[in-house]
Amino acid sequence: MNLSSLILKYFFPYADKKEFNKWATFTLSAAVDFLENKDGQKLHEYISPNDIAKLFQDFLIPEKGKDLFDVLSETMNHIVKNSVKVSHPFYIGHMTGACPNFTILCDLIISFLNQNVVKIETALSATYVERQILNWMHNLIYKNKKFLNKKIFEDSNYFLGSFCSGGTIGNITALLVARNKLFPSIHKDGVNTAFKKSGCKKAVVLVSSRGHYSIKKAAAILGIGEKNVIPIPCHRDSNNIDIRKLDDTIKKLIKQQIKIIAIIGIAGTTETGNIDNLNQLATITKKYKIWFHVDAAWGGALLFSKKYQSKLLGIEKADSVVLDGHKFLFLTLSNSAVLFKDAYALNLIKHNANYIIREGSGDLGKTSIEGSRRFDSLKLWFAIKIIGREGYEALINNAIENAFLFKQMIDSHPSFEMTNIPETGIVTYRFIPKILKVKLQSAKNIYHLSKSQQTVELKRNFTKLQKEFLPLIVKINDFINELNINLQKQQRKNGNSFVSRTLLESVWERQEIVVLRAIPFNPLIKIETLSEILKEQEAIGNALFESEFPDFLKQVPLAVSFVCKV
Amino acid sequence: MNLSSLILKYFFPYADKKEFNKWATFTLSAAVDFLENKDGQKLHEYISPNDIAKLFQDFLIPEKGKDLFDVLSETMNHIVKNSVKVSHPFYIGHMTGACPNFTILCDLIISFLNQNVVKIETALSATYVERQILNWMHNLIYKNKKFLNKKIFEDSNYFLGSFCSGGTIGNITALLVARNKLFPSIHKDGVNTAFKKSGCKKAVVLVSSRGHYSIKKAAAILGIGEKNVIPIPCHRDSNNIDIRKLDDTIKKLIKQQIKIIAIIGIAGTTETGNIDNLNQLATITKKYKIWFHVDAAWGGALLFSKKYQSKLLGIEKADSVVLDGHKFLFLTLSNSAVLFKDAYALNLIKHNANYIIREGSGDLGKTSIEGSRRFDSLKLWFAIKIIGREGYEALINNAIENAFLFKQMIDSHPSFEMTNIPETGIVTYRFIPKILKVKLQSAKNIYHLSKSQQTVELKRNFTKLQKEFLPLIVKINDFINELNINLQKQQRKNGNSFVSRTLLESVWERQEIVVLRAIPFNPLIKIETLSEILKEQEAIGNALFESEFPDFLKQVPLAVSFVCKV
Repeated sequence: MNLSSLILKYFFPYADKKEFNKWATFTLSAAVDFLENKDGQKLHEYISPNDIAKLFQDFLIPEKGKDLFDVLSETMNHIVKNSVKVSHPFYIGHMTGACPNFTILCDLIISFLNQNVVKIETALSATYVERQILNWMHNLIYKNKKFLNKKIFEDSNYFLGSFCSGGTIGNITALLVARNKLFPSIHKDGVNTAFKKSGCKKAVVLVSSRGHYSIKKAAAILGIGEKNVIPIPCHRDSNNIDIRKLDDTIKKLIKQQIKIIAIIGIAGTTETGNIDNLNQLATITKKYKIWFHVDAAWGGALLFSKKYQSKLLGIEKADSVVLDGHKFLFLTLSNSAVLFKDAYALNLIKHNANYIIREGSGDLGKTSIEGSRRFDSLKLWFAIKIIGREGYEALINNAIENAFLFKQMIDSHPSFEMTNIPETGIVTYRFIPKILKVKLQSAKNIYHLSKSQQTVELKRNFTKLQKEFLPLIVKINDFINELNINLQKQQRKNGNSFVSRTLLESVWERQEIVVLRAIPFNPLIKIETLSEILKEQEAIGNALFESEFPDFLKQVPLAVSFVCKV
Repeated sequence: MNLSSLILKYFFPYADKKEFNKWATFTLSAAVDFLENKDGQKLHEYISPNDIAKLFQDFLIPEKGKDLFDVLSETMNHIVKNSVKVSHPFYIGHMTGACPNFTILCDLIISFLNQNVVKIETALSATYVERQILNWMHNLIYKNKKFLNKKIFEDSNYFLGSFCSGGTIGNITALLVARNKLFPSIHKDGVNTAFKKSGCKKAVVLVSSRGHYSIKKAAAILGIGEKNVIPIPCHRDSNNIDIRKLDDTIKKLIKQQIKIIAIIGIAGTTETGNIDNLNQLATITKKYKIWFHVDAAWGGALLFSKKYQSKLLGIEKADSVVLDGHKFLFLTLSNSAVLFKDAYALNLIKHNANYIIREGSGDLGKTSIEGSRRFDSLKLWFAIKIIGREGYEALINNAIENAFLFKQMIDSHPSFEMTNIPETGIVTYRFIPKILKVKLQSAKNIYHLSKSQQTVELKRNFTKLQKEFLPLIVKINDFINELNINLQKQQRKNGNSFVSRTLLESVWERQEIVVLRAIPFNPLIKIETLSEILKEQEAIGNALFESEFPDFLKQVPLAVSFVCKV
């Protein structure tokens, strides 16, 4: 296609408005279609990965362009049709659910404005919108109830925080600031020289064993090293950081003259949604004068809920906080922010260039890791204006109530076992064939007894099992793990519903257990949605059990006595 | 607003489709309005930053939500109205111009699909689309003409590259891989230990003095240190790296046992758009076995042009290449990719987690710096299908021709001076009052003569100036610098047209000159657009000169003799 026909077809003011509106109407109706999640509609078409791959095999850039409607149809038939319906109420496996329909219009506005928020020259009002939201969030987190932005216009080194493409960039930003604070010359000199200057041989980051993988990623990127993220054990029941063990670790590190860059509290772990005791973390970080970062990418949303915000008490003492709009604030990707208590902290990573983000300017790009940036913050501005704090509270409370409802169903079910307390709406559980569940329960009770009592109880309950008790339990758990992996895979393949899965430490030593992971925060979820999902899982699990258990018994004959109590 | 009214209003399938379509129609017509850039329309409303700030002063999250139409109107009146019309043909100051109107629909599709490309579970076809484009781009850069993706399905450690939110993240990714390649244990151990293991005290990155500021940012983030980015001088006329000086620097560094992490070639510098000699860089990096990265964020697009692609010869030998779709490929933000010659290179930064991106999976998130990621790559897929290579060539060639046309206008103008060769469509120049331009030109000629000839010529041309010659020139250039800064500010304030400005080394020692920077790549630009912009600048410049020159003469009386040749 030559230049003038390209301009006439696709560039306003020359392009035909009617034609554009035709395409737009077509796309909008596809949007509504996709989002309607009509009853009985699957989460995705049944098509094998290999067959999808075949649709995208052309490996050379086409010489000639195609008609827009042809490409739009191809997009609908190949891409939209084979996308995952993440907004479907039966899709409860990840932190993605239904978004209010106006978020799509927001994305449209962001797109046609195409403001680049790196600098005011390409983002006039957008710069101020972003600052307003940072003020909102700063107030929300730090409970200021103050107008803070005023200062920004007087003082170009005053930054409440930074928007970014996701929680990972947010965590990297926070840890970068913490690293630079501890080692004043590190930004300019690099790790090696800065360490030498301050007589440091090693520096670490502390986070509970439930820390998001982005923390390790951040440490690797920042030159600290993945293995210098020290995992602090969690309490097994509450899945939050063991403060005593944290304190012990700190003392040990100080004795070894190892520097601590930051201690990270998690407000809503990715795996179980549990919240660390932020108040205790605040006390301990204050005591040792260590940077206190809170990864509230998921759970930070609870600040909008008067009912649940107390769970985050202590967050107002954090030096930095990450919060994602595209998770529990029901926005489409991407929308994330990192906030700093000290509005001068971000100066530790400030940069300038001759052409943009000059010293003294109000350009937002001066302190962001990313350069050019989409005006994604508009979505949060827009949503907060329409939904209000109250509306967000309703959505968030509903999600947490859904989770507790699901917990009840699981607790009262003979073939499932809960593995966490769904504080922030994340439920982990596993399928255990009815016949094994009761046995495992008594075994677990015995396991927790003293050695002498154990012998008595083992004799009574599992006559033939003495020394072989624990190894057998491990094998049975391995079998159940395999069952849950296959269950989750089969469920996903069926396409009726979706939960994810992960690995958690079990009550059994040295063994990780596979758990199913549900995040029923989609407001479209009904009670029946949850019971149907459980029913489907039960059916799949039982079928798998029936087909796989005989083989297992053949391989592990002792299991027969376990099951039959002989 | 309570839960059920939220659901009934804003969540499909319960929300009213007609209502949604009404909002959508309203938004779409605002989009067309904004993009039409009607004749005589300003680039932005005239409103002071303080007055814009006043529109966004509410500092607390509102308790109650507002009606959608109210918020939509507020968005239009406060935000859209006060946005910069970056698609306007008179806005030629940055790498943002008009995008084909269908990109907006793409953003709409990306939004309603809301696929999270970090993992297949939340992005089915999107994963394959992204891989297809990576194959396209890999072929484009490395001239493979091969189907490469097949291997990906057989081998989950095979990655052609990674999409990312911008060139900055792309550059960080490439340098992270290069860093990890040079220091095998660094990802796990951190910089300090890894340096010690390999007996290294210092490691650096080499790039021309025109390197984008993200390179320094990357070095700071990666623990290498900002000041360990060694700037290699450029040839003054061609603005590309001085290979001889690079070679000298390498030899010196090797002698000092300093390790070189990467040498970066620039294909389209941000300031002047010039391209380093990539073939020579390839030879030198091969000779010394150093990672060769090419920052082609801007200029990589030339690969689409048969006419101009030869300017990038040597890029096919780069270990890694960054290319932005949201710059010279006419896409809305964000769209960027980093490609790797060796499809196993990205394994150097691979990470896994229990819940997602498991080992063995085809999840794209395994090797991306970002975690959750928007399906932004769809835009490039869509645009390439519609525009085709030929269409892109037409758009790109037109941009470069615009730039040369503008150069001609400037060259033949008595009050402007070109300061670069607009190889990839970026024009730098400065306003010099007519009366000074001729004088400066003869001064420049004299400046380049031998010492003895200089004395003769000075006597002939600037009688009263001998010793004071160079200091005076510096003062005059300072005055011209100030003039160009004020010109650019005034032009921006007027809102009729926009160019940016930057600082370049001048032909005069130890002095930087302020230059105006235009990137006339918007296909809507006509000859008249460019001449009108120049005319406005001339008028502003002359007015500023008239009002400011008398003061300057008072302060620098010698300048009188310079101007009047007495």
